[in-house]
Amino acid sequence: MINNAELKTTILNKINNKTKPLGALGTLETLALQIALIQNTESPVITNPTVVVFAADHGIALNNEVNIYPQAVTAQMVLNFCSGGAAINVFCKQNNIALLIVDAGVNFNFDPTLPIVHAKVAPGTNNYCNGYAIDPLQIETILKKGGNIVETIVNKGCNTISFGEMGISNTSSAALIMHYYTGLPLAQCVGRGTGANDAQLQKKMETLQQAADYHLLSAKNITPTNLLACIGGYEIVMMVGAYLKAYQLGITILVDGFIATAALYSAIKILNSPAEAPGNITGDSNLLNHCIFCHASGEQGHLAMLNALKAEPLLNLNMRLGEGTGAAIAMPIIQSAVAFLNNMASFESAGVSTKEAE
Amino acid sequence: MINNAELKTTILNKINNKTKPLGALGTLETLALQIALIQNTESPVITNPTVVVFAADHGIALNNEVNIYPQAVTAQMVLNFCSGGAAINVFCKQNNIALLIVDAGVNFNFDPTLPIVHAKVAPGTNNYCNGYAIDPLQIETILKKGGNIVETIVNKGCNTISFGEMGISNTSSAALIMHYYTGLPLAQCVGRGTGANDAQLQKKMETLQQAADYHLLSAKNITPTNLLACIGGYEIVMMVGAYLKAYQLGITILVDGFIATAALYSAIKILNSPAEAPGNITGDSNLLNHCIFCHASGEQGHLAMLNALKAEPLLNLNMRLGEGTGAAIAMPIIQSAVAFLNNMASFESAGVSTKEAE
Repeated sequence: MINNAELKTTILNKINNKTKPLGALGTLETLALQIALIQNTESPVITNPTVVVFAADHGIALNNEVNIYPQAVTAQMVLNFCSGGAAINVFCKQNNIALLIVDAGVNFNFDPTLPIVHAKVAPGTNNYCNGYAIDPLQIETILKKGGNIVETIVNKGCNTISFGEMGISNTSSAALIMHYYTGLPLAQCVGRGTGANDAQLQKKMETLQQAADYHLLSAKNITPTNLLACIGGYEIVMMVGAYLKAYQLGITILVDGFIATAALYSAIKILNSPAEAPGNITGDSNLLNHCIFCHASGEQGHLAMLNALKAEPLLNLNMRLGEGTGAAIAMPIIQSAVAFLNNMASFESAGVSTKEAE
Repeated sequence: MINNAELKTTILNKINNKTKPLGALGTLETLALQIALIQNTESPVITNPTVVVFAADHGIALNNEVNIYPQAVTAQMVLNFCSGGAAINVFCKQNNIALLIVDAGVNFNFDPTLPIVHAKVAPGTNNYCNGYAIDPLQIETILKKGGNIVETIVNKGCNTISFGEMGISNTSSAALIMHYYTGLPLAQCVGRGTGANDAQLQKKMETLQQAADYHLLSAKNITPTNLLACIGGYEIVMMVGAYLKAYQLGITILVDGFIATAALYSAIKILNSPAEAPGNITGDSNLLNHCIFCHASGEQGHLAMLNALKAEPLLNLNMRLGEGTGAAIAMPIIQSAVAFLNNMASFESAGVSTKEAE
């Protein structure tokens, strides 16, 4: 649908006939075209926009070598999400975005009545410095879990979705994914996360180099799903499944920050490996056409990862919080793009001259 | 009020105790601090946000040497504003911003019942290529008109305001103001406006060089108000008066694009020239502390002018429409800054660990 040349012409004409100089709304025009093509209409609407936050714990966090907050903060933040006190709660409420929290594998026994999706794989992954983070045989099931969550949301009328995450030490998994796919030196992929100082960053680097060596990441012969088993996290794998399903269902995807981009990268690599592509998705992926890159995170490595994907971020506000906050903040701008396309007058309808001065 | 060190400490503590890593909300944290200091409280609120669009015509536009749309478009767009069809209407409606249109000097006799502020100085300025654009004796009155409009709005409860403009050829006045104050070569200050091609840009450059020569801009001995008389526009001068009053009343000012920034530059220069500063405003201006620079316009010169003011724009979406659209688009992000400061939980209230992993 995204290659519909006739529709593209119709949409561009509609944009160009709005009462404004050609191209004067800049990126908003690009966004309007993209969303209209995704929705296969010249009058797109954003319905039930939703942020799904996947939360999980990482075995590597228990040694506190890559993280400066203790692992317990993951569960504490899930409870904070439930009581409405986190940044993502505030921004979703402000911008009328539905928020769904998923326990993908937090190391805490949540009350089963807690209003979250209880999809715990296990209470945290294994430490990937000396073994698989996740049993490779589990990956497909976890991907499906993520997909099912998206399917349920879309069935309820959502056509614009974003994925956030919470998981102490998950910038480490994301850095290793980035390192593997971009080929950039680990030092360019590893950042300060929640705020590591120089010594802490050095320890994080050394620990992750150990993990990269153990899994022979430099050999570059690991399949995309196996890479997730090696150094992934449950929230990341579930998010990968969520991207794949959102693409399959043809909706608009708002991409958040560093970890969300690493998960997207994994999804693209799965689509590009025909043996691994699930269902009716072909190896030649158009997933990127469905993605709006909401912001450049303050986490080192994000911009380089976006560059590797030829992705241009909408915002650059030096945010590095995760949770989907960059996407939630960007939502009004995306809605502005749709609003001008639908609601601005044309030169003709408004009686405004188009012809150049003579 | 903006130098209240004790309050600043209180606000920073409040920000740093929110359930997020230190500094993780990036620019939103800077914005929250700024707005809280402007409002002299740790719990700021944005009330009745308003965009005022000043519209006027320019004598120089009649020869079509600097503009590619005919002068008639200014009046046509004012009517478009009134019927709700312009981009600024769409964005203000989307983001719950009040919109006020001011006829500062459009070359058209509007129906007096039209719901705009009828503040026409004259039906367009004189062509500044061979004389004053505006009678120097009129400048003070026009500044006051702009100030009075802001005072009325603030008296009705607005504490956050932005100024937009509509006026065929007003990028030319703005370019000359920029050239005079920044000292940058005219070629770096003159842009394509509504979309001049190379030949049209060349003609625009030559015409504006003529104007710069006629008014001896290179001599650099013109007072800020006299510069406005030389090459200003009614909408620009009224906007300058609006900035001065908004600053005097201590409210938050959202700065839009190229023309809005040139008007702000003029206001700052007036404040820095004690003889010209109206009322009780001292020459040592804190006006910039009240300003949020909403976006970097796609118009060449804007980024350089922002640099000259040491101003960092929030957004960079390659928009170049004027009307206040950049400010209207940025409003939700500014509201996000206030929302997190007021509504996020603290580490203590949410029971989230702050201490570093050991």
